[in-house]
Amino acid sequence: MNPIKTEIGYCTTERIYVRGHDLANDLIGKVDFIDMMMLVVLGRKCEGNERDMINAIMVTVMDHGLTPSALAARLTYLGAPEAMQAAVAAGLLGAGSVFLGAMENATLMLRDLVKSLPENAGDEQFLDIATAFYKDRRVARQTIYGLGHNIHVNGDPRIPALREVSQRNGYYGVHWRAMEQLEAVSGILGKRRLPINAAGAVGAMVADMQLPPTLARGLTLISRCAGLIGHVLEEQSSPTGQALWDLVLRQDPRNAVHS
Amino acid sequence: MNPIKTEIGYCTTERIYVRGHDLANDLIGKVDFIDMMMLVVLGRKCEGNERDMINAIMVTVMDHGLTPSALAARLTYLGAPEAMQAAVAAGLLGAGSVFLGAMENATLMLRDLVKSLPENAGDEQFLDIATAFYKDRRVARQTIYGLGHNIHVNGDPRIPALREVSQRNGYYGVHWRAMEQLEAVSGILGKRRLPINAAGAVGAMVADMQLPPTLARGLTLISRCAGLIGHVLEEQSSPTGQALWDLVLRQDPRNAVHS
Amino acid sequence: MNPIKTEIGYCTTERIYVRGHDLANDLIGKVDFIDMMMLVVLGRKCEGNERDMINAIMVTVMDHGLTPSALAARLTYLGAPEAMQAAVAAGLLGAGSVFLGAMENATLMLRDLVKSLPENAGDEQFLDIATAFYKDRRVARQTIYGLGHNIHVNGDPRIPALREVSQRNGYYGVHWRAMEQLEAVSGILGKRRLPINAAGAVGAMVADMQLPPTLARGLTLISRCAGLIGHVLEEQSSPTGQALWDLVLRQDPRNAVHS
Amino acid sequence: MNPIKTEIGYCTTERIYVRGHDLANDLIGKVDFIDMMMLVVLGRKCEGNERDMINAIMVTVMDHGLTPSALAARLTYLGAPEAMQAAVAAGLLGAGSVFLGAMENATLMLRDLVKSLPENAGDEQFLDIATAFYKDRRVARQTIYGLGHNIHVNGDPRIPALREVSQRNGYYGVHWRAMEQLEAVSGILGKRRLPINAAGAVGAMVADMQLPPTLARGLTLISRCAGLIGHVLEEQSSPTGQALWDLVLRQDPRNAVHS
Repeated sequence: MNPIKTEIGYCTTERIYVRGHDLANDLIGKVDFIDMMMLVVLGRKCEGNERDMINAIMVTVMDHGLTPSALAARLTYLGAPEAMQAAVAAGLLGAGSVFLGAMENATLMLRDLVKSLPENAGDEQFLDIATAFYKDRRVARQTIYGLGHNIHVNGDPRIPALREVSQRNGYYGVHWRAMEQLEAVSGILGKRRLPINAAGAVGAMVADMQLPPTLARGLTLISRCAGLIGHVLEEQSSPTGQALWDLVLRQDPRNAVHS
Repeated sequence: MNPIKTEIGYCTTERIYVRGHDLANDLIGKVDFIDMMMLVVLGRKCEGNERDMINAIMVTVMDHGLTPSALAARLTYLGAPEAMQAAVAAGLLGAGSVFLGAMENATLMLRDLVKSLPENAGDEQFLDIATAFYKDRRVARQTIYGLGHNIHVNGDPRIPALREVSQRNGYYGVHWRAMEQLEAVSGILGKRRLPINAAGAVGAMVADMQLPPTLARGLTLISRCAGLIGHVLEEQSSPTGQALWDLVLRQDPRNAVHS
Repeated sequence: MNPIKTEIGYCTTERIYVRGHDLANDLIGKVDFIDMMMLVVLGRKCEGNERDMINAIMVTVMDHGLTPSALAARLTYLGAPEAMQAAVAAGLLGAGSVFLGAMENATLMLRDLVKSLPENAGDEQFLDIATAFYKDRRVARQTIYGLGHNIHVNGDPRIPALREVSQRNGYYGVHWRAMEQLEAVSGILGKRRLPINAAGAVGAMVADMQLPPTLARGLTLISRCAGLIGHVLEEQSSPTGQALWDLVLRQDPRNAVHS
Repeated sequence: MNPIKTEIGYCTTERIYVRGHDLANDLIGKVDFIDMMMLVVLGRKCEGNERDMINAIMVTVMDHGLTPSALAARLTYLGAPEAMQAAVAAGLLGAGSVFLGAMENATLMLRDLVKSLPENAGDEQFLDIATAFYKDRRVARQTIYGLGHNIHVNGDPRIPALREVSQRNGYYGVHWRAMEQLEAVSGILGKRRLPINAAGAVGAMVADMQLPPTLARGLTLISRCAGLIGHVLEEQSSPTGQALWDLVLRQDPRNAVHS
């Protein structure tokens, strides 16, 4: 039998230890949320310019209004206002392959592409490899993550900002370049160029920071959790849940709608 | 019909707005996670010394090892490793009246106690009112939140650290004092003094900061989400889920255990 | 330490036991779902006419179209089609005090009302007690469960059918009568008579069957789970998730909508 | 924009319709849970001997004691007893690729295998095709679903019972035979014969009944939901959650344990 223990923490009668640090004496009031998160998740505080990068990622993905995850949370809150954790959990459950989880998939895909790249590959060679990679995935009917957006059809406004943050902090590396090559390839091979989306940029950032791919999805879950708390608070003061339901019922004229 | 809209954000083809700010130009790379969280949740960035307080709360509640929420997440991950968001959601679902949600209840309780307190109440008057409040809740069989801990029986080590942070930042106010009076009352009326626990301290902090009570639970959900990502990552590299299951099965000798 | 064991079941290398029965030899192919459910949940198969009552309850609550729980499930499925269990779980999470959980609350409320009823109470005495009970709850700002419906304002069509099933099977007892008295009181004391709704009828049925109140919520969770599978399957063949999202975005003219 | 409507149901002021039937007049008290489930999920009641098959599947997967899903539910209930729906949801969230979701994967796999089978294939040809299929999946590092069990190493006791039910009802078809061929191949190519497990048998049954593969996972979610209600009820009367937590803490001697 494996020993059942975690390196994350344990408690004695007198003390609580997190990653070997005394929580009360060494962490509370002394480290901030981001360092604590890195400590719990990776066993070490931020290094280099990681903090700015992580802040940028988390600011990017926190919220932008009535997304499916916000709607699922609000509709759940309507039925169970005594259990707001359930509304938040409902909102997180959609972070799968299509939406937020796509960031993890983009990280994995970029690491995969970059593996077949010779050291010191020039731009042309890079483009060739990206082209082959793109074609292979199309043939195998695998999603090419990180490209295209059905609202920001001319380019996702977050991408230049994320690129700038990455460059400023020294994390504009081979995965960012791979993502950009894929965008270029999409313009060459497809009907129209598919601009990089947030999943692509965050995927590249996590890969260029050499963080575990799981963290691409993980950071979005944490940040989106904050966004969902915002939706729950707004729902408390100016509820939309019932109106959402009525709006949907009204789409099918057979339905009577709540009076 | 109510208009269905949110003040949190909206998207045009060219821009994303969060609380009226242009996400790409004004927020990414310019504000940190805590300010963004406050913006999304409350519609404003941190004021005064709020940032230090919020960091201290979130550092306090993030994780301390194999709690029920961590175990629920790990056992869920065992069955569905392709959907880590489901494991994280399972871990958050227990944040109810007994564990993390108790922080919200403590905030509400302290606000309730303080309401009946005359301005400029002296210590003696305060103690009288806390005593009456304590007795009333006992008679009505209502939980007195924020007191007692079944591991840290001589005092929760986090409390002095949280008090110090609150004092340093100017948020050691009437709700903190109310919580302390309740601790004192427990020693006078009960068999043994019940020390303030983390729910009590966080409840007092949120109340003294005049934040919405929901945020007491909300901040713990966000921070615990980070803790759960840590457990999922550890589960990926050194899994415990199967061993946990086997450990439980072994408690009933009628069970055969996985080989 | 408590022994950690369950009376529900255990496994040996050769056999699986559920409530003491050999699953493979005594249950599979020999009992139906309803008996198995009763066995697992209550430790015994159906007795008397329980099966008809339970079928009627479960048929009543399974589904009736695009409810908030169905919408939460569909919006979750949109983001994570690889994890349909997460969509189903999201749909169940709203079964709280307002919607499906209200059935449990109605059962508890009716048991409470009936406690103060003398044996052989006549109709007049019953009405007096129900009136006092109704007023007390109004004064204490406690919800009176089981009354009123904002679509079926002239009466919930399910109630006569459920009453008939209860009468036919010998479970039209004091809790059903208490629910009907509350309906009558609502007409006497309020602006308009509030007809019994499904929560009220199911609450009365569970109470008159002397089943645990938790089972009122439990049966609805199981049956709604079937309804949600129906929504997931329909979403697979004729998806609505994206259209739902677009519909909501379109309510706020500031939003661009997916093309 | 797609019309947003469902074929599952709708409500008028006077009536509720489910799949075109009047719920109150035609379904409540007239159809049982299984027929209602089929109606909601597939749009038709049971046909042929489907009812016996579905009952057998649901009886098989309902519960067998302290599985990871039961443990996740119990640990969630410990923190949030006011929201039992959250405990049930937590228990369902692990129904992924490893545990209950594997039944869906087995159905899909068997349909895939059978596609390449010529009509009237004899046993020998069948074995050849199954062997090639088995080898291909091994090479591609794809899981072969439905084989092996780490407790029932000499054979899962549920399989003969499920085979017997399938034969008796006329659903012992080509997918059952494919599953048995894979078992045989495992004995020829591997170190030891891997017996068919419940996922394999249920997968074969759903495939031989020509039901949608999603229903293999769907039926287990519904039935397991009933099992989880059983665990919640037991937890109410004889709780194990705290003891489970303590048991885990005790595995790491650094931890103090609750007193």
